[in-house]
Amino acid sequence: MKMSLFDSLYTQAQQLDERDALASIRELFALPEDLIYLDGNSLGPVTYAARHRAIEVVVNQWQSDLIKSWNQHNWIGLPQQVGAKIAPLIGAAPAEVIACDSISVNLYKLLHVALAIQHASSPSRYKIITQIDNFPTDGYIAQGVVTHHREQHELVYVDETDILDALDEDVAVLMLTHVNYKTGFMLDMAEITSKAHAHGILVIWDLAHTTGVIPIDCHAWGVDFAVGCGYKYLNGGPGAPAFVYAAQRHHAQLAQPLSGWMGHALPFAFEQDYRAGEGMQSFLCGTPSVISMSVLDASLNVFAHVDMQDVRYKSVQLTQFCLLCMEASELLNELPCISPLDGQNRGSQLAFTHSQSYAISQALIAKGIVADFRAPNVLRLGFAPLYVRYQDIVTSISTLATIMNEHIYLEETYQVRQTVT
Amino acid sequence: MKMSLFDSLYTQAQQLDERDALASIRELFALPEDLIYLDGNSLGPVTYAARHRAIEVVVNQWQSDLIKSWNQHNWIGLPQQVGAKIAPLIGAAPAEVIACDSISVNLYKLLHVALAIQHASSPSRYKIITQIDNFPTDGYIAQGVVTHHREQHELVYVDETDILDALDEDVAVLMLTHVNYKTGFMLDMAEITSKAHAHGILVIWDLAHTTGVIPIDCHAWGVDFAVGCGYKYLNGGPGAPAFVYAAQRHHAQLAQPLSGWMGHALPFAFEQDYRAGEGMQSFLCGTPSVISMSVLDASLNVFAHVDMQDVRYKSVQLTQFCLLCMEASELLNELPCISPLDGQNRGSQLAFTHSQSYAISQALIAKGIVADFRAPNVLRLGFAPLYVRYQDIVTSISTLATIMNEHIYLEETYQVRQTVT
Repeated sequence: MKMSLFDSLYTQAQQLDERDALASIRELFALPEDLIYLDGNSLGPVTYAARHRAIEVVVNQWQSDLIKSWNQHNWIGLPQQVGAKIAPLIGAAPAEVIACDSISVNLYKLLHVALAIQHASSPSRYKIITQIDNFPTDGYIAQGVVTHHREQHELVYVDETDILDALDEDVAVLMLTHVNYKTGFMLDMAEITSKAHAHGILVIWDLAHTTGVIPIDCHAWGVDFAVGCGYKYLNGGPGAPAFVYAAQRHHAQLAQPLSGWMGHALPFAFEQDYRAGEGMQSFLCGTPSVISMSVLDASLNVFAHVDMQDVRYKSVQLTQFCLLCMEASELLNELPCISPLDGQNRGSQLAFTHSQSYAISQALIAKGIVADFRAPNVLRLGFAPLYVRYQDIVTSISTLATIMNEHIYLEETYQVRQTVT
Repeated sequence: MKMSLFDSLYTQAQQLDERDALASIRELFALPEDLIYLDGNSLGPVTYAARHRAIEVVVNQWQSDLIKSWNQHNWIGLPQQVGAKIAPLIGAAPAEVIACDSISVNLYKLLHVALAIQHASSPSRYKIITQIDNFPTDGYIAQGVVTHHREQHELVYVDETDILDALDEDVAVLMLTHVNYKTGFMLDMAEITSKAHAHGILVIWDLAHTTGVIPIDCHAWGVDFAVGCGYKYLNGGPGAPAFVYAAQRHHAQLAQPLSGWMGHALPFAFEQDYRAGEGMQSFLCGTPSVISMSVLDASLNVFAHVDMQDVRYKSVQLTQFCLLCMEASELLNELPCISPLDGQNRGSQLAFTHSQSYAISQALIAKGIVADFRAPNVLRLGFAPLYVRYQDIVTSISTLATIMNEHIYLEETYQVRQTVT
């Protein structure tokens, strides 16, 4: 019975794959054989371009040209060059985006910038609002800012469905992640930004689970500030540098406290006094990790070949097709889906709950299907449209059905320190 | 005349190279042929181990094992693993050193930690002292801390020869670079630390031009805090992660404001509230640049084969031999040396001044000798004992003599944005 169901789904998947506008993009990735990778939302896979560039930067640049590479291979311009490649993915101008440091460090800078702007015009605003179940580091960074520097401020956690109700004239900054890392629940960035602005609130968006998979329009939506991740849907390699976006209209007020030499107007003039560089340069701090940044730069070349609308279309279709497979194979009762069922409200992932989610994820991995687990009970499947095929979904859900029906998963206890989001 | 002088010096150099205890270490480096590299104090060259590891981490880890690599290849433990390899080079315990972020970001963390410790016991101390001519980013970071967070504090720049006189009970933190990036002037770390402690001052040392070339003893000298560079004498690759050292006795008071998830006691428990991890883990912030960190990790393996006392001995000998060649070829009048003439007071470099230093450095580079220029008028030669030979010095100074005697250098104007220190 079940076999014929999956046979039929597989035929349907093959037809969808044949009609897929992005089908050829998969060939740009060096994917391991016999593995289905549903964890690109955690760590994107290597592209041939990135692999080539890693060798290029080490052997043909660092080894051969040594210190001269800073100019000869434009290492010095990489943060801007990478930023300019990311800009069109988020509806920003090239000069509004720069790559540097990590999301955590960049959120710290942006919180300071946004709070300082508010302090200058509305010093009585004392709240920083973020969502309950935001990715922890975002909250940790805001806690650090409040505890160490802004004791008069208050960090308020609000349910993601109650955000609009929490906006008032006491709020200085709203710091939100666009797509929930666990459930994939996607906030309405345009509406929230607009309503926050109506209250005079500045908004910082974390686009970790957005950039490279959901086209957004920072200009059209009036977005103030954003950060995003280089190693998820941008496939920039483990711990790739993050990026910062700041709207042009804020560029005259970007004073951030991590005033390292790369953010100086003239780093190589070796002046004694700090003078911030113009615009996004002022977000730079120390010497960038050139090898990691170069690999990210090369990874981004894939996006020159794709239309982000096609990416989003396929993302919604993939997640919808996965839900169809889950439903057809009667797995949804046992593994209820906690992601939004309307594709327009979710990112490129699906989350299912089960008391043995960790063990189930391990059983899937043992069978060549990389899914992941998020504490305490979430099985998370990510669908990166650039290389995941519809047929991969049928294979994955068919395998999941076998695991569940035959209780192949071990009742393991989750050990902290498994993987990195 | 000059030819026979350099012939004789070359013979002498060959004898010194033959007796060099570190001669075989050069074979661990992939050095370009026909190039003499006197800029390892700016960017160390690639080792075969590092080159191999770059390919390993991209192809055999990221590509093949994807997200599983965090545990399988211990990516998650790299900051501690790299720290433990650096510890013996600075006389620290493995649990006192961790690799992360950049020197600039790490100085920012340490300044907050040190100021908070002082605030708790001696709130009236208001001065932060650093040296005039410290590497600019160190001062910029301290300026950022004072401007944004500690307006009641004052950053005081003191001549490097007047430091001891500047110490009193108003000083909270002394932040110094051990070896001057331009002149190579080396401070007496043991004496300064001891005298600062006598006044109740905490000391932060920047070991950028020290680590990997000058053995120091953080334990014996009672050093409080330090940062250091991964890409100079540690040869970790362009923009390699930096490191932080904090003495065990301060580990109970390491609250730093960049409280990202990797510094949390249990990053993968995804708790809402930040709880700092124990000891050095609390200095971690965002996800580390794994590719850059892996390359640094491999580069450090070279140090397993060397005795730091041999490294220091050769470093002093190399700089002394260079001065001998400069003097013998009568170049010191035209290019006076501003580095300490006593080898015990200098790092592994020599600085000469000339109004056309930039043009001279370019002429040297054109002839295959990589030296560098530091504004406004310094020609800087670095001598990394792991791969620079005595014979390289004779070739370099002989070439410099030709350039000076025949005025081969172009009178170019220095253009800002040349190279990265």
